[in-house]
Amino acid sequence: MSGARLRRREASSRIELFGLRSLPEITPGDDLAALIADAPRREGLELRTGDILVLAQKVVSKAEGRVVRLSDVKPSELARSWARTIRADPRFVEIVLRESRRVIRMTERALIVETRHGFICANAGVDRSNVRSAGSVTCLPLDPDRSAQRLVERLRKLTGARVAVIVSDTFGRPWRLGLTNVAIGAAGLAVLEDLRGTRDASGRELQGTILALADELAAAADLVMKKAAQIPAVVIRGVRFARARGSARQLIRPASEDMFR
Amino acid sequence: MSGARLRRREASSRIELFGLRSLPEITPGDDLAALIADAPRREGLELRTGDILVLAQKVVSKAEGRVVRLSDVKPSELARSWARTIRADPRFVEIVLRESRRVIRMTERALIVETRHGFICANAGVDRSNVRSAGSVTCLPLDPDRSAQRLVERLRKLTGARVAVIVSDTFGRPWRLGLTNVAIGAAGLAVLEDLRGTRDASGRELQGTILALADELAAAADLVMKKAAQIPAVVIRGVRFARARGSARQLIRPASEDMFR
Repeated sequence: MSGARLRRREASSRIELFGLRSLPEITPGDDLAALIADAPRREGLELRTGDILVLAQKVVSKAEGRVVRLSDVKPSELARSWARTIRADPRFVEIVLRESRRVIRMTERALIVETRHGFICANAGVDRSNVRSAGSVTCLPLDPDRSAQRLVERLRKLTGARVAVIVSDTFGRPWRLGLTNVAIGAAGLAVLEDLRGTRDASGRELQGTILALADELAAAADLVMKKAAQIPAVVIRGVRFARARGSARQLIRPASEDMFR
Repeated sequence: MSGARLRRREASSRIELFGLRSLPEITPGDDLAALIADAPRREGLELRTGDILVLAQKVVSKAEGRVVRLSDVKPSELARSWARTIRADPRFVEIVLRESRRVIRMTERALIVETRHGFICANAGVDRSNVRSAGSVTCLPLDPDRSAQRLVERLRKLTGARVAVIVSDTFGRPWRLGLTNVAIGAAGLAVLEDLRGTRDASGRELQGTILALADELAAAADLVMKKAAQIPAVVIRGVRFARARGSARQLIRPASEDMFR
């Protein structure tokens, strides 16, 4: 095999992830796209067409002003009753209920709900960590797909690069322990990758293989994010994907099709 | 900020994934560790201490001889009856049932079962793709943690590098569409990363945050594997992890603790 051939092969099976460490603390009203575009353009850190930018929900929520002060919240009777049972702050429970379309389960450890977007997760994604003010929480973006789409468009204008954007959050899941980072918003890529019709190494057609590409990208980015809460933005380079408008809601399995329930 | 400081920061927020493309087709009895150790030692591709090697279940199963010829299988009455309903090969259904401890759900599209290891997945991980012979299937390794542990030890001897090993497979999941790659075997790392007690960027203690590190590593590796079925081995470099004996069974959520069920 020639050297050129080897290099091509190697290049095509290599992926890199970079954390954007120079983002400042985000506050409501910040121009997140401009801050990301301004992140140091050191060797290899400029955004390039074909890159995938994965953002922690927290920075998107903060930039969009989705921060709620607990002191502004008047809890309902349900919130106060449940908060007594689990010894939680009734204002926190109230915010979770407001962010929810349906309560799946109330347990001592968490409220498992379906969010207004349709995601099933603990506490509707309402989060007390990484908020500067101890008396505040963040809520998920109202429309994370739209947040992602706006970032795609603004980053195109600011940097010239056509990137895909994923807004991510760490969710628990049934059957398996531990949180994994998943996509709650997406733009610029097809979130599901349908491998049906493609052939495996033996030439056999791959049956029923649809990959949750956006969730795998979010999980990969979390390997960088977990290193420190200060890295809420990760660039993934070297992954081929199908361009599409994209929507993380396509990752929601309709209850009627859910063989696992 | 000094250049040296910048470089350190950058280095600590960068992760690389390499696919080992030069592995030959694996057949029963192959010395998988030796083949991996012999994979071209081109610049940057030698295994290093601290690397994580993620393997597709298929190559581990093949090396361990977990290949079953359909013609050797005599289906039970249950297998034949269910196979008629879903128009499947009764011998395939029989193998799935043999690999299972419990049937969760029989649907037209798949049998959702608890495998003998305790994993909940479709068809007990029995797979017809990527098997050279059209009349054969692969089954999951009998003890994927042990498979991983043996590879850790052998690779240490062969290369001198202390690597962690994850055996992975793509599973469906409730609530969300699409498959994601997860860890079914692990050795050399703590599969769950407990961030409780650590503090976020605001100095607040992170509550209840246990990451499924091994599953996020498996998902990240799938971004390389998906490029072609010929890349069943991926090296992940730059992720810090806690050394431990490791076991993917620790990722199984006991039914009694499963708030999501």
